[in-house]
Amino acid sequence: MTDLGHVDGLLAPRSVAIIGASEDVTRIGGRPIAAMLKAGYKGDILPVNPKRDSVQGLACYASVDDLPMAPDAALIAVPAKLVPQTIEALGRKGCKAATLFSAGFAEMGAEGEAAQRELVALAGSYGMRLLGPNTLGVYNVDIGYYGSFSSSLDTGFPLAGNIGIASQSGAFGAHLGALARDRGLGSSILMTTGNEADITVADAIAWMAQNDATDVICTYMEAVNDAPALLRALDAARAAGKPVIALKSGRSVVGAAAAASHTASLTGDAVVADAVLTAHGAIIVRDPETMLDIAYVASKKIFPKQNSLGVITVSGGAGIVISDEAERIGFPMPPMPDEAQAHLNEVLPYGSPVNPLDCTAQALNDPSLLEVFTRAALQDGGYGAVLCFFTYVAGSPAMSDTIMQAMTPLRAAYPDRIIAFVALGAPEVLRSYDDQGILIFNDPCRATRAIHAICSMRDAVNVTAPDVTPLTLPDHTPDEATAKEILAQSGILSAPEQAVQSIEDAVAAADSFGYPVVMKILSPDILHKSDIGAVKLNLDDEGAVRLAYAEILGAASRHAPDAHISGILVAKQLSGGVECLMGINRDPAFGPMAVFGLGGIFVELLNDVAVRECPFDTVAAHEMISSIRGAAILKGARGQAPVDMDALAEMLSRLSIFAAGAGERLTSVDLNPVLALPQGAYALDAVIEVKEL
Amino acid sequence: MTDLGHVDGLLAPRSVAIIGASEDVTRIGGRPIAAMLKAGYKGDILPVNPKRDSVQGLACYASVDDLPMAPDAALIAVPAKLVPQTIEALGRKGCKAATLFSAGFAEMGAEGEAAQRELVALAGSYGMRLLGPNTLGVYNVDIGYYGSFSSSLDTGFPLAGNIGIASQSGAFGAHLGALARDRGLGSSILMTTGNEADITVADAIAWMAQNDATDVICTYMEAVNDAPALLRALDAARAAGKPVIALKSGRSVVGAAAAASHTASLTGDAVVADAVLTAHGAIIVRDPETMLDIAYVASKKIFPKQNSLGVITVSGGAGIVISDEAERIGFPMPPMPDEAQAHLNEVLPYGSPVNPLDCTAQALNDPSLLEVFTRAALQDGGYGAVLCFFTYVAGSPAMSDTIMQAMTPLRAAYPDRIIAFVALGAPEVLRSYDDQGILIFNDPCRATRAIHAICSMRDAVNVTAPDVTPLTLPDHTPDEATAKEILAQSGILSAPEQAVQSIEDAVAAADSFGYPVVMKILSPDILHKSDIGAVKLNLDDEGAVRLAYAEILGAASRHAPDAHISGILVAKQLSGGVECLMGINRDPAFGPMAVFGLGGIFVELLNDVAVRECPFDTVAAHEMISSIRGAAILKGARGQAPVDMDALAEMLSRLSIFAAGAGERLTSVDLNPVLALPQGAYALDAVIEVKEL
Repeated sequence: MTDLGHVDGLLAPRSVAIIGASEDVTRIGGRPIAAMLKAGYKGDILPVNPKRDSVQGLACYASVDDLPMAPDAALIAVPAKLVPQTIEALGRKGCKAATLFSAGFAEMGAEGEAAQRELVALAGSYGMRLLGPNTLGVYNVDIGYYGSFSSSLDTGFPLAGNIGIASQSGAFGAHLGALARDRGLGSSILMTTGNEADITVADAIAWMAQNDATDVICTYMEAVNDAPALLRALDAARAAGKPVIALKSGRSVVGAAAAASHTASLTGDAVVADAVLTAHGAIIVRDPETMLDIAYVASKKIFPKQNSLGVITVSGGAGIVISDEAERIGFPMPPMPDEAQAHLNEVLPYGSPVNPLDCTAQALNDPSLLEVFTRAALQDGGYGAVLCFFTYVAGSPAMSDTIMQAMTPLRAAYPDRIIAFVALGAPEVLRSYDDQGILIFNDPCRATRAIHAICSMRDAVNVTAPDVTPLTLPDHTPDEATAKEILAQSGILSAPEQAVQSIEDAVAAADSFGYPVVMKILSPDILHKSDIGAVKLNLDDEGAVRLAYAEILGAASRHAPDAHISGILVAKQLSGGVECLMGINRDPAFGPMAVFGLGGIFVELLNDVAVRECPFDTVAAHEMISSIRGAAILKGARGQAPVDMDALAEMLSRLSIFAAGAGERLTSVDLNPVLALPQGAYALDAVIEVKEL
Repeated sequence: MTDLGHVDGLLAPRSVAIIGASEDVTRIGGRPIAAMLKAGYKGDILPVNPKRDSVQGLACYASVDDLPMAPDAALIAVPAKLVPQTIEALGRKGCKAATLFSAGFAEMGAEGEAAQRELVALAGSYGMRLLGPNTLGVYNVDIGYYGSFSSSLDTGFPLAGNIGIASQSGAFGAHLGALARDRGLGSSILMTTGNEADITVADAIAWMAQNDATDVICTYMEAVNDAPALLRALDAARAAGKPVIALKSGRSVVGAAAAASHTASLTGDAVVADAVLTAHGAIIVRDPETMLDIAYVASKKIFPKQNSLGVITVSGGAGIVISDEAERIGFPMPPMPDEAQAHLNEVLPYGSPVNPLDCTAQALNDPSLLEVFTRAALQDGGYGAVLCFFTYVAGSPAMSDTIMQAMTPLRAAYPDRIIAFVALGAPEVLRSYDDQGILIFNDPCRATRAIHAICSMRDAVNVTAPDVTPLTLPDHTPDEATAKEILAQSGILSAPEQAVQSIEDAVAAADSFGYPVVMKILSPDILHKSDIGAVKLNLDDEGAVRLAYAEILGAASRHAPDAHISGILVAKQLSGGVECLMGINRDPAFGPMAVFGLGGIFVELLNDVAVRECPFDTVAAHEMISSIRGAAILKGARGQAPVDMDALAEMLSRLSIFAAGAGERLTSVDLNPVLALPQGAYALDAVIEVKEL
C-alpha cells in the first residue's frame, strides 16, 4: 500500500496552523477559521499573524516559530512573495503538509513556474508536501475540517455522505460539492489541487480509496500531471470496490486553449486519456450533473451482476421513451420470461407484461399492481436494475405510504439489485424512499443513463498484464526490411519478402514467392515511398520485376539523391481481406499507446480508432478491435468473408508488448496497411521511428 | 386561419358537464370537479349522475337530457359500454366537444378499434368532436379549468405560465406538467390526446399557436396520426413565433414494440419524423428534462439573431468544460475582439479575456469585475447568448444583491440577448435573478445545450416551396432506359446512353459515345442486374462490346428465362468522382421522402443519410447534402477534386419535385449510383417503382 501519510496531514489533520490568519471572516485567511469554528472541528486551530494577539476568539501566534507544536497541516494565506520564507519556517518547525492558497505562480508564466519549482524543492528539503499553489483547499466533512476559503460554504455546509471529490479546479470542485449538497447528496471529502506543483488528484484518489468514509470518488482534471500515480490510484480504487467517475476537460480546441491559460495545464489528448482511464476502471463523463447522477447511484453501494434493465410504468409513453434511451446507450432490456408474462397477463389483462412492463393507470385504483409488477421484474425478470416510472403517483401523499410498504420487503429481498423510481412530489416524500435505498430521479432518461453506467461497470474486460521482455532498439531509425525483422522477432508477421541488392536476386526472390509481387525501395531516409514512385505493385512476371527494379532506383535517385539506399524489398503481393492500420504513438502523459483502425475513410474522415495503453493481452486487443464503428467490416459485412480476428488481436497485443519492451527510445510504430485475411494477418508496411542514439 | 372552435370548447369552455360525476374526489368522475372547485373555475360545472341530487355541493342532474343548457364541454367518465348512448344524448343536447376519459377502445384490439370508429362517426353526426378515448384530459391554468382526472394534481396545481403542453400520452404529459411545476416553471395548457380517435396533438398545437397565454409549445407523440394537420400546426406556431419542442418516441426496436401495445400507435420511422418536424421548425429532443430546459429558455421570449455563445466564469475549469460541450454540439464561441481583450487585460491582468472569459476568484474581492466582463461580452463580443458560470458566488447572500444591481441595467440594455447564470444557492435568491429575466441553471452543460437549441433556431434554412407540375406515370414499373427518360423530362441527367436491340446498334452507340462503355440488360422484370451477370463494365473496344452483348443475353436467359427483355442499354462509362445515392421512399405518414447518401459503407454500415419531405428547393438540397457525416468526401477530402455540389443539389431538388408531382402512384425511386463529378452529376442507374394500374 502506498504511503499516504502526507495526505493524512492534508485531509485529516489533528492540528492546523493558518499563516496569515484574519479576523475578517470574508478574507482568505479568515474563512477557514470561521468555517472550522462553526463546524466544530475538534483539532487545534492555530492562527499565525504578527499583528494580532487573537483571531476570531482564538489565541494567535506572531510567527510560525512561536507555534506551540508542529502542526499536522498549515494553510498558507500570505502574498506570493512571502511564501518561501513561510515554507522555510514551517519546515524548520516540522510541519509536513502545507496548503498554498496563494496564487501568483505557474499560472502567471515562466517566472512563476520557476518560483513554484523552487517552493517544491524547498518544502522537499524538509520532507514537507505541498497542496497548490492556487488551490481553494480541502474539506473533510466527518471531522469538520475546512482547510478551504471557498465561498461555497456561505450557502451552507456540505451534507455528510460517502461521495468524495478530487478536483484540479477549485471553483469547479466547490461547485460539484455545492451542487451535491443542493441535490441532497452527502459528501465526505473535497480536495482541490490547483497548480499541482506537488500533490495531484492522484494522491487524493489514492487516499480516498483507503478512506472509510468514502465509497464513491468523483474527479475533475484538466491535465494529467502524474500519470503513473493516477493509474495506481485508479487501480487502488477499483480494488477497493469504489467507482471513480472522471471528467477530463480540455477536449475541444477552445477548451484546450482555455486550459492552457488556466492552472498552467496542457490538457493532452482527451481520447488517449479517456481510453487509459476507462481501461483502469474509471467511468468517463462530460458534465458535472451526470457525474453526480452516477455518483448518486453508486453511493447506494449496489453493483448488480446483471447488466440489464427492467422498466415498470404507469404510463406506456414513459416506457417507450425509456426503451428508446436504453437502446441508444446500449443498455439491454430483455423481455420477461414467457411464464411470467402469462401470469401478469392474468393479473392485468390490458397491461403490458413484456419489458417495459406497463401496469397502466389501473395502478391508481389498485396500488398492489405496483408491487406485483416490481416483484415480477426482480424475481422472474432477474434484471440487474429495475426502473419504476411512478411519477406523481409515487409522490402523491395519498399513495406514498402504500407504495413504501409494498417496496420495503422487495428492497430487502433483492439487496444486489438497483431499484429506482422516477418520481415527483414533495421533497420529504421522495427522501423517504431514498432513505430506504430506492433511488429517486425526476427524469427517466437521466435515470437510465446513470444506472447503466453502474450496471455496465462489470462489463469492463478484466485484462491480464502480459509479460514484457526489454528489447534493444537499433541506434537509428531502421529501414522497412529491418523494421519488419525487428517486429518478426516479437511475432508480428509480414508477407513473405526479401531484401535484394541486384536485379537477378529480385527475380529469384519473386520466382520463389510466386507472382504477383510488390517491390519497394529500402531506405531509412525515405519514409513516404509511394509519393516518389518508389513502390511498384502488381508485378506479374519476370519482365515486370526487371523493369520495376530500374524504375525504383531511378525514382529514388531523382527525388532523394542523398538518401542511403540499402536495397530493394521484394514481397509477395497479398490481396483480398481488409486493410487495417496499427501503430504506436507516445503520449506525453501515458507513454506508448497502441492505435487500431481500418484503412481509408474510417480513420481519415471518421476518426474511428481505438487506443489503449501498452502492453495488453489478446482479450483487450479483441475488445479494441470490436469497439470501432467499422468492426462490422471485419466481421464480414457487405458479403465478404470474415477476417481472422484472432490473428489480428494476436498481432495487436504483440505490438503492444513490443512497444512496452522497447522503452523510452521508441518514438512510434506505423503498420499501415496491415492486411487482415480470412486466415492470418500481415503487416504490408512497417515504419519504426526511434530516438537516435 | 383554421377553425379551431371545437378546441375552444375543449380547452376553454364556459360550461362543462361531467357525465358519471362522483362525490368521491379520488374517482375519475370526482377528481375534475374537485380540482375545478379548488382552482376557482368561473364557468358552470354541471354534474350528471342519475343516483344523486348533488355532487360535491353542486346541483346534480339525473341525465344529459336534464341539463339546463348545452355544455361547451363534456367529460365522459362512464364505463365503455355506456359511452355510445352518452355521446348520443350529448349530441342531441347540442354539445360540440366531449372528452372521453373512458378506456377500453382501440388499445384493446380490433373490436375496440371498431367501437372507437363508431363513436367518432356518431359524434360527427352531431358535429361533435372527441378528445380521447383513453385520455387524462386537459387543463387550462389561466381560467382554472381542470377537465382532467390526473392524480398529478394531488401534489399541487400547475404554476401559471406561458408553456403549453400537448401530449399523446396522458401520464407522460402530466409528468411533464408536474416536472415543470416542481422546477418552478409555469404552464398555460396541458392537453393529452390518448387514442386520438378524432382530435390529435396537431389540434392542440394549432390552438396554442393562437392562444395568447402560450408562448412555447412542448409536444410528445408516439405516432403521427394526422401528418398534414401536424405540419400545418407547426407552420402556424412558427409563423406565430412560438417554438415547438417535440419528443417523438418509438425510435428503438423495444420502444416501437411497446408503443404498438400502447394507445394503439404504430410509431413509424423516427428518422423520417425527425427530419420532417425539423424542416417545419420543431426542435427535436429525446427526454422530458431537455424539453423543459429548452422550453425554459424559450419562455423568456428572447430569440437572439446571433448563434454564438460568450462564456464568463469565476473558475477557469468551468470555462473549459463549457467550451468542450459547445464544440461538441456545434455552438460557436468566437473570441472577443482584440481591442476588448486588451481592455480586459488592463482591468484584470491575470484573467482571461478571450472566450471563455475568466474573471477568476478575484471577482469575490471585486464583484464589479462580473459586471465589467459581462458588459464586455454583450457589447464588444456581441454574442447572442452570454452564459455566466457564477455558481455559489451568485447564490451567496453576501454577493447576490451586488450582482443583481450590476446585472439589471445590462439586462435592460440588451433585450435581444440571452443572459444565463449557472448558479447555486437558496431558491429565493435564484428566483430573484430569474424574475429579472436572467436564466438560472445549475449545470453548465445543460445550460449550454438548451441555450444552443434556441440560438440555433434561426439557422434553420428558410426554404421556398418549389412549383410542382403533376406528372403521369406509366401504367407499369418501367425499365431502366424508360425510367431515365422519365427522369430526364424532370431534368435529372444520366450518362449518354442508348437502348439497342442489335449487336450492330450496340457497336454504333459505343463508337458514338467513345470508349469505355457499360452495357446492361433492359428489363422491367430484372431489378438486380449485377447479381445475375447482366451488367458489363470497362468495355474498351468493339470486340468487347460484341462479346458483352452475347454474354448479357445469355445470363438473362439462364437466370430469368421468363423476363421480358426490351433490349440492352449501352452507356458511356463515366469514371472518377464520388458515387452517391439518391432515392424516394414513401412514408406512411409524410408521403414521399427524398433520401441522399454516399455509396458503399456510408449508407450500408453507418446509416449516414439525410432525408427530407418532398418537394424542396436547391437551398434545402444543399443543406441535406452537407448534413451527412461523409460530406467531406464530396468537398474534396483525401486529395480528390471537390465534386459539383450545385449539380448534385439541383438533381436532388429536381428529384423531390418529380416525386411530389408523380403523386400517390409513385412507390419509390432509386438512383444508385449517382456519380458526382467535378463538373456535373449523373444517375448511372435508375429504378422507378409505381403502383401497377
